[in-house]
Amino acid sequence: MMRFFATPQDAEAAFYDALERADVDAMMRIWAEDEEVVCIHAQGDRAVGFAAVRESWQRIFSTGPLATVRHVDPVHRQGVLLAMHNLLEQYSVPGETQSTAPVIASHVYVRGAQGWHLLSRHTSFAPKNVDVDSPSVLH
Amino acid sequence: MMRFFATPQDAEAAFYDALERADVDAMMRIWAEDEEVVCIHAQGDRAVGFAAVRESWQRIFSTGPLATVRHVDPVHRQGVLLAMHNLLEQYSVPGETQSTAPVIASHVYVRGAQGWHLLSRHTSFAPKNVDVDSPSVLH
Repeated sequence: MMRFFATPQDAEAAFYDALERADVDAMMRIWAEDEEVVCIHAQGDRAVGFAAVRESWQRIFSTGPLATVRHVDPVHRQGVLLAMHNLLEQYSVPGETQSTAPVIASHVYVRGAQGWHLLSRHTSFAPKNVDVDSPSVLH
Repeated sequence: MMRFFATPQDAEAAFYDALERADVDAMMRIWAEDEEVVCIHAQGDRAVGFAAVRESWQRIFSTGPLATVRHVDPVHRQGVLLAMHNLLEQYSVPGETQSTAPVIASHVYVRGAQGWHLLSRHTSFAPKNVDVDSPSVLH
């Protein structure tokens, strides 16, 4: 059951909310129910299709503690049916003071009858020395 | 000076041609001339803006030998103004028999007055055991 999202930004806010709560059902309401959804996790595997994407999130959420995620330095482009967001994610695990390398995320959203939903997410680790508070060093 | 591409597929074919020839000028004719283009190389750095993307390709092309690139198992979605392609790339360096891990690539193309051009490219290494000839194992 997809939720209605009026904008890609609304879908993205719900995505990070589901991610922080490790809630698979909430997470999958953000994705387009489509055999061509694609999710590439920072660990490297590519999941294609709604069922495979769901399974990959289930695996991730079943391990490890919840993390809070700051997402910064976005680049956005919006079309009529598709939108592209690129951003940096900084994960913080409660009780751990050392933060991990930031993750670079590319999101593509698609607009359908039920509003905007995630069509693809591609993530990978940024170099460790990237400072998410001074994003200009990335260039 | 951008080249005109009637479809994202045309732009993508020219992209791989420029990549195999390590030709920076040809490569940059495929990108939108835009301050919001984004390129994330598999080594991890994020280049934002046309000048930074050009510089990153110049750096890559100045080192190492040319490689041939097979690109397989695509997932495509086309909108009016944006298009998304996700695919696997297998690089082969002449004289080296051992092939590297495949690279997963997400491309977003944008349509403008000069046709379709690359707006973002996000790449990362797939796990080493991925067989690009049996892509179903990726799911």
